[in-house]
Amino acid sequence: MENEEPRPLLVSFIASGQGAWRIERIDTIVGESLPAADRLEVVESPSPSLSVAPAWVLRGVTSNVRYTNRLELDALQQSQEPLNRPLATRAALIPIRKTAAWWNLAQDERRRIFEEQSHHIAIGLEYLPAIARRLHHSRELHEPFDFLTWFEYAPEHSDAFEQLVLRLRNTEEWHYVDREIDIRLVRS
Amino acid sequence: MENEEPRPLLVSFIASGQGAWRIERIDTIVGESLPAADRLEVVESPSPSLSVAPAWVLRGVTSNVRYTNRLELDALQQSQEPLNRPLATRAALIPIRKTAAWWNLAQDERRRIFEEQSHHIAIGLEYLPAIARRLHHSRELHEPFDFLTWFEYAPEHSDAFEQLVLRLRNTEEWHYVDREIDIRLVRS
Repeated sequence: MENEEPRPLLVSFIASGQGAWRIERIDTIVGESLPAADRLEVVESPSPSLSVAPAWVLRGVTSNVRYTNRLELDALQQSQEPLNRPLATRAALIPIRKTAAWWNLAQDERRRIFEEQSHHIAIGLEYLPAIARRLHHSRELHEPFDFLTWFEYAPEHSDAFEQLVLRLRNTEEWHYVDREIDIRLVRS
Repeated sequence: MENEEPRPLLVSFIASGQGAWRIERIDTIVGESLPAADRLEVVESPSPSLSVAPAWVLRGVTSNVRYTNRLELDALQQSQEPLNRPLATRAALIPIRKTAAWWNLAQDERRRIFEEQSHHIAIGLEYLPAIARRLHHSRELHEPFDFLTWFEYAPEHSDAFEQLVLRLRNTEEWHYVDREIDIRLVRS
């Protein structure tokens, strides 16, 4: 599931006592955890003003697709829906970091693992349009994670979302993930 | 010519009255120009201390390869030499920006233009090991350019470098370049 925004958008995810999203839980899947917090604000700005001291801030930037081919991109663009749908009151923020072994691979090797072996794009397509998502790149910003993926869905698609996440974690690609946090949120 | 540094390195190119490199000339190839300056310092830091007001600062970050396949990466890694060779007293900094049309292409479409049509990697390989280079990504940093490529070579390879630059500018890939500056420097 890659992002196809034409212009990079810098986004800050700010965890503190305030924000539009209530944090239901923060599960550490692998590696170091993140501090607990009550609420999360998603700010489309590189340097948001902070009225309270945050528990943590994660930053990422949308970018061009890195693996998605034309046929896949057309299929994604035909089916995917935007963020901020009124019925999509559930969200997940899943920060991950990949190993040096991943980043040292050549482009064709990463593509083969990502799609031909792990079917990352094909699996994501199965859950459209129910689950909307936006990918943010963090590695080049010297952040603690390489990617921040943000998902939004309606409550009735919660089980589908669990299935999506478990299927992705069970892929060859995920052998290269050495830090992953799963943060679930409710708009309120 | 892509960069294969495993860990992103944030680099600032600072043009002012001081620095290890003397600016010989700044040629505007296409698009808006850059102000004149006498010298350039290359600082491997995201927030360098500035002792004088610079004419301009351009920032970029090294990253994983985006198009290079395994065979190409092996060939590059066998032949390429590092920066800072004592005999490499000539340098070029070539900032470029690509069009929205480029960034909206899918990965396979960009790869096809980059290598199968334009032979960007193959052309670069012909000039190794004489010409060392490092690619810096700027687009996700909200910089005015998308890429900053830094080249270093000995004076006797100046003609070869001119040829390399002209061949790349004559490719299909360069139809997607809408701003390019060519900055030539001498270490002194």
